[in-house]
Amino acid sequence: MKKIGILTGGGDCPGLNAVIRAVVKSASVKYNFEVIGIEDGFDGLVLPNKTHVLTPWGIRGILPVGGTILGTSTRANPFEYKVIQDGVHEVIDVSRDIMRNAESLGLEGLIVIGGDGTLRIAYELYNMGCPTVGVPKTIDNDIPATDVTFGFNTAVQVATDALDRLHTTAESHHRVMVVEVMGRYVGWIALETGISGGADVILIPEIPFSVDKVCDKINSRKKSGSRSSIVVVAEGAKPIGGEVTVISGAERGGRAERLGGIGSKVGAEIEKCIDMEVRVTVLGHLQRGGTPNAFDRLLSTRFGVTAVDLIANKRFGEMVCLKGQRVESVSLKEVIKEQKTVPTEEGLVKTAESIGICFGR
Amino acid sequence: MKKIGILTGGGDCPGLNAVIRAVVKSASVKYNFEVIGIEDGFDGLVLPNKTHVLTPWGIRGILPVGGTILGTSTRANPFEYKVIQDGVHEVIDVSRDIMRNAESLGLEGLIVIGGDGTLRIAYELYNMGCPTVGVPKTIDNDIPATDVTFGFNTAVQVATDALDRLHTTAESHHRVMVVEVMGRYVGWIALETGISGGADVILIPEIPFSVDKVCDKINSRKKSGSRSSIVVVAEGAKPIGGEVTVISGAERGGRAERLGGIGSKVGAEIEKCIDMEVRVTVLGHLQRGGTPNAFDRLLSTRFGVTAVDLIANKRFGEMVCLKGQRVESVSLKEVIKEQKTVPTEEGLVKTAESIGICFGR
Amino acid sequence: MKKIGILTGGGDCPGLNAVIRAVVKSASVKYNFEVIGIEDGFDGLVLPNKTHVLTPWGIRGILPVGGTILGTSTRANPFEYKVIQDGVHEVIDVSRDIMRNAESLGLEGLIVIGGDGTLRIAYELYNMGCPTVGVPKTIDNDIPATDVTFGFNTAVQVATDALDRLHTTAESHHRVMVVEVMGRYVGWIALETGISGGADVILIPEIPFSVDKVCDKINSRKKSGSRSSIVVVAEGAKPIGGEVTVISGAERGGRAERLGGIGSKVGAEIEKCIDMEVRVTVLGHLQRGGTPNAFDRLLSTRFGVTAVDLIANKRFGEMVCLKGQRVESVSLKEVIKEQKTVPTEEGLVKTAESIGICFGR
Amino acid sequence: MKKIGILTGGGDCPGLNAVIRAVVKSASVKYNFEVIGIEDGFDGLVLPNKTHVLTPWGIRGILPVGGTILGTSTRANPFEYKVIQDGVHEVIDVSRDIMRNAESLGLEGLIVIGGDGTLRIAYELYNMGCPTVGVPKTIDNDIPATDVTFGFNTAVQVATDALDRLHTTAESHHRVMVVEVMGRYVGWIALETGISGGADVILIPEIPFSVDKVCDKINSRKKSGSRSSIVVVAEGAKPIGGEVTVISGAERGGRAERLGGIGSKVGAEIEKCIDMEVRVTVLGHLQRGGTPNAFDRLLSTRFGVTAVDLIANKRFGEMVCLKGQRVESVSLKEVIKEQKTVPTEEGLVKTAESIGICFGR
Repeated sequence: MKKIGILTGGGDCPGLNAVIRAVVKSASVKYNFEVIGIEDGFDGLVLPNKTHVLTPWGIRGILPVGGTILGTSTRANPFEYKVIQDGVHEVIDVSRDIMRNAESLGLEGLIVIGGDGTLRIAYELYNMGCPTVGVPKTIDNDIPATDVTFGFNTAVQVATDALDRLHTTAESHHRVMVVEVMGRYVGWIALETGISGGADVILIPEIPFSVDKVCDKINSRKKSGSRSSIVVVAEGAKPIGGEVTVISGAERGGRAERLGGIGSKVGAEIEKCIDMEVRVTVLGHLQRGGTPNAFDRLLSTRFGVTAVDLIANKRFGEMVCLKGQRVESVSLKEVIKEQKTVPTEEGLVKTAESIGICFGR
Repeated sequence: MKKIGILTGGGDCPGLNAVIRAVVKSASVKYNFEVIGIEDGFDGLVLPNKTHVLTPWGIRGILPVGGTILGTSTRANPFEYKVIQDGVHEVIDVSRDIMRNAESLGLEGLIVIGGDGTLRIAYELYNMGCPTVGVPKTIDNDIPATDVTFGFNTAVQVATDALDRLHTTAESHHRVMVVEVMGRYVGWIALETGISGGADVILIPEIPFSVDKVCDKINSRKKSGSRSSIVVVAEGAKPIGGEVTVISGAERGGRAERLGGIGSKVGAEIEKCIDMEVRVTVLGHLQRGGTPNAFDRLLSTRFGVTAVDLIANKRFGEMVCLKGQRVESVSLKEVIKEQKTVPTEEGLVKTAESIGICFGR
Repeated sequence: MKKIGILTGGGDCPGLNAVIRAVVKSASVKYNFEVIGIEDGFDGLVLPNKTHVLTPWGIRGILPVGGTILGTSTRANPFEYKVIQDGVHEVIDVSRDIMRNAESLGLEGLIVIGGDGTLRIAYELYNMGCPTVGVPKTIDNDIPATDVTFGFNTAVQVATDALDRLHTTAESHHRVMVVEVMGRYVGWIALETGISGGADVILIPEIPFSVDKVCDKINSRKKSGSRSSIVVVAEGAKPIGGEVTVISGAERGGRAERLGGIGSKVGAEIEKCIDMEVRVTVLGHLQRGGTPNAFDRLLSTRFGVTAVDLIANKRFGEMVCLKGQRVESVSLKEVIKEQKTVPTEEGLVKTAESIGICFGR
Repeated sequence: MKKIGILTGGGDCPGLNAVIRAVVKSASVKYNFEVIGIEDGFDGLVLPNKTHVLTPWGIRGILPVGGTILGTSTRANPFEYKVIQDGVHEVIDVSRDIMRNAESLGLEGLIVIGGDGTLRIAYELYNMGCPTVGVPKTIDNDIPATDVTFGFNTAVQVATDALDRLHTTAESHHRVMVVEVMGRYVGWIALETGISGGADVILIPEIPFSVDKVCDKINSRKKSGSRSSIVVVAEGAKPIGGEVTVISGAERGGRAERLGGIGSKVGAEIEKCIDMEVRVTVLGHLQRGGTPNAFDRLLSTRFGVTAVDLIANKRFGEMVCLKGQRVESVSLKEVIKEQKTVPTEEGLVKTAESIGICFGR
């Protein structure tokens, strides 16, 4: 019986378990492959005793469950692996060990579910001869070559639900509510949440903003009788001429507690130029945990099934992707080139501007 | 100032108000058009005192609200309009009256939001010279020429949430739970709900089913230790050689109380051939009311904005549609030809079969 | 180490796992007791191989999970136990076997979680010498001697969410929506759901109804401009002079498929006397499965902790209960006397009538 | 026709509109009183043009809607009213003006819905001769003389839902998640949320905490195999010997952006003493906006109906309250004496400790 491995890397994301379930079920039903679960991302191929067989019976019930039953790691880059040897912190390359361990496990394919960092590692391992296949995962939706990643839609729904709740407080108190959402260096979550949640202003990294324009918008609303406004700010948004303040690398994403996040800064700036109370909410990790919605469960299932197909067809070095209504695949090489940013002169931004949403430009 | 009209026809559907809001906002912000709201579908162009101006201020707050502020009608076909004259029920053609009334209102464009029946009327009125533009609306997702309709995704989410609840009862009692969902003559809601909700069997109109195959599946699960099973049945599903039992026309869709619905029939048949308790739930109207989810709010907003663009560009006789990630338009002529059914040998059905879901074939 | 047993009987109910978790944690943390889980209600004390040790580690993660990890049975009455011996169906008394098995397991206490039927058995076993303690469980809230049972509040929330969705369809189509909810022989779910969900009419078993009064109410609303109405019907509601149609015993509760449920009957009667469309929805099992809400998780946890306290204090034959804000205990003898029905001349019914809700009287 | 007034003061709270609706409906149905809505709290009795008649028709649809259709104010204390006269900020006493305006409106009763600050004003106005009746409102549940306030249960549910989402991320990443919830100077929200959401540590103002004890708990969990922990921190929690950091008065409650909130401090302290990653989430205003749950809609409706009864019976100077299952009334004098704090040696705290939850003591 052919053996394939599966691991999840990077930040938590709704739908990870749904992918795992689809892989295990499809491997069993369609191909009679055995699936080896690898714990805590690439750590599970470096450290001992971190793999076990996944059976359809063993993974029953995980479809609606958030998180990943395999665990994940945001720090385990095999090419720059941090170890403490004799009390000394060192960074070593364990990629050869991973190759050896995967081989000794008898893996004829390795499904790597992760964001851009994890997929880059998958590509490098592939180039070294490891039979990897990628599944794009991120709530940020910043991975190119796929129309959308799983987890993103759930994050937008959670943030939209939050906006629904904040609207009523804004209206009751005649306030400006500033909501900082995730998204790292791109504005996808902010943009879709802002439109779906009825925001008046959306600030995204792709469009550097002017606080004056934001205040003009709020004041203009006030004049026409709307005594409250909702401002959605992507964590990576930046003022014109300003700097991005997203904390890079492993520390990114939802450190709600960090001082001086862009949401707070924007709130403070707005309060200076208008005569209304301002409140700031930082949604943080709520956006990345919990049960995936129906959309993401479906997409995750499709991705998982297709990933097994890729391995069965020995199409290594590829990543599953959504193109329109079809799930297809693309070379990992195409994926790691750049981030998928929000187009600023077409599509959703233009739609938003058509209904009066201000981007601070 | 240019005037445009807007009406909603057919059954309730999450996202109707989001379209109306986007039309009113975009007409005002982008084009400075005045929007006339027409009440209760085409009734509002036949009966007196059923139109009023819609302003951005007047429609504030409706984005998350289910239903339609304009009201709708499932019976108002202008070409076969039912009236009672002198105590006698008659069916007359009021399409000329509609043309006249639209003209006397000064409408230079008429946005018609509806399902296949309503869009067909829009097309016929267009052929008579009425400047109509269509927006596809149905929870059933059966309209061709668009990848998806608004309302569908919310219906799938509601049904998936229901499945999540039913799973626990099925497992606690070791039961078979049969869930009848909407969808009219097509299986889209059943298919996506079944995959997203972890169903074991999905029965859809496009694949006539054998109860024996269904029981084989349930028994096989029982043997391998799964003491409960979930069966999702589209209201239009039919046994091999059997008849469709969906109630046609205006009476369709969610008459949960109707006797002998296919869900109950399937449940009764299953109970005969397996040694387990069976329970049937008919979701009914829960699937078509209430707040639209983020996906549908976004799609509705995009559709509304694009519908106004079509009118501004005098592209009458067209319908807005989603193609991949883009909102475009297509001739209404293409839309009314046929229903969009589920492909049975590719795509989602194959994905579902890959993870062991049985379609009763 | 002292050993105690735990079993769940009767229909599924949100909060069962939360009670189990609290029992296991409290037994371990506070008393260092060992907890034996007994599967499928009293079946688990009759049939072999249906018990296993429950540890805090083993039950982690079950707090938000609906259903019961122990399984349940709606048919296992030890005093009238159905068996098939030599092909012949027989009803025998296995209560002695249960006593013996409990003893041979070394149980010094047995926590029985269930509704009135299950608690009655617990009381009879207690009278035979079995150290039982009861925990009241039912979504119907019909158990006396406790202000409320766990599961009830979640059922009301699920039904209220459904009403929220149905409102929009009712309004868009100017319809009467009839919603049948559970509750068996009492009207608690209907009453609280009706008030919380904004119903116009509530029909409960405790107040036999006149359809004429219902139609008067709907027509009076129509005259004052409200073109839709919501009617909540308890499954046990009955017309003046009519019969209760709840299916008794194990078959009760949520057989949504049963023909001629009271909801459908009421809908049909209303349609005869008013000039509006009527639609009926039967909520069914959605009300008894799925994750418990915060209220029920808290109550379940308190009940579980107190049940272990009762055993530690050898207060057998008692049931935990909520009195105001306090969790206390009461003799099982008090519990099994009668059902807790809705008072018809005070409290919630009067509150409902004060805001214009009609009870068909 | 008798006239009564109604106003809402203090922070937003789920259920305000449900009270308003019940007052208007009950006043109309039961007493034929006319209800005058007063905007923006006591501001509406100081400034011109801020009152209007509320009719059953006018308030239809508001039951599930969050916020308050009357608007509120957190700054309008009539006894210390802030005005700007000739460019100079002044604080004046406008209580006489309020009395006069209420009289000139012909109000024979004034329903004041608010928290402790607003109710204190209601009591002082009552002492001056104003026919006030109070309705206790606060998500914090800190008002004495009532078992619970409306809004509290919804806040707990929202926070519990958040914990459900955070659990999966904590487990996937083997992290400690610190969640700061509201509650002002009391620990009710933290306590009920912590139990319902499966927290391992709960820190409340009533029990000063030791970070060492918290770390002991987390480490002990880690040793027994639980690689993640959830810590719920009330915004008013304080270390042993430390200071309360809640921002007092009008600025309190959910200023998520404030630097150095107790959640962040606790997170930072924990990170110092354990070898795990820590993340902090501040829930903020999500807890006070949005639709009330079924529990709060029911309680709000009961409070509203009873408030009108009090006025009809000329029982001024009283506040409606919940005692066990009954809605009663109590003198406002009893209400304003002190805050209702969490008992630390009985009830819920003891329940929580029985299942191993640590309070840092």
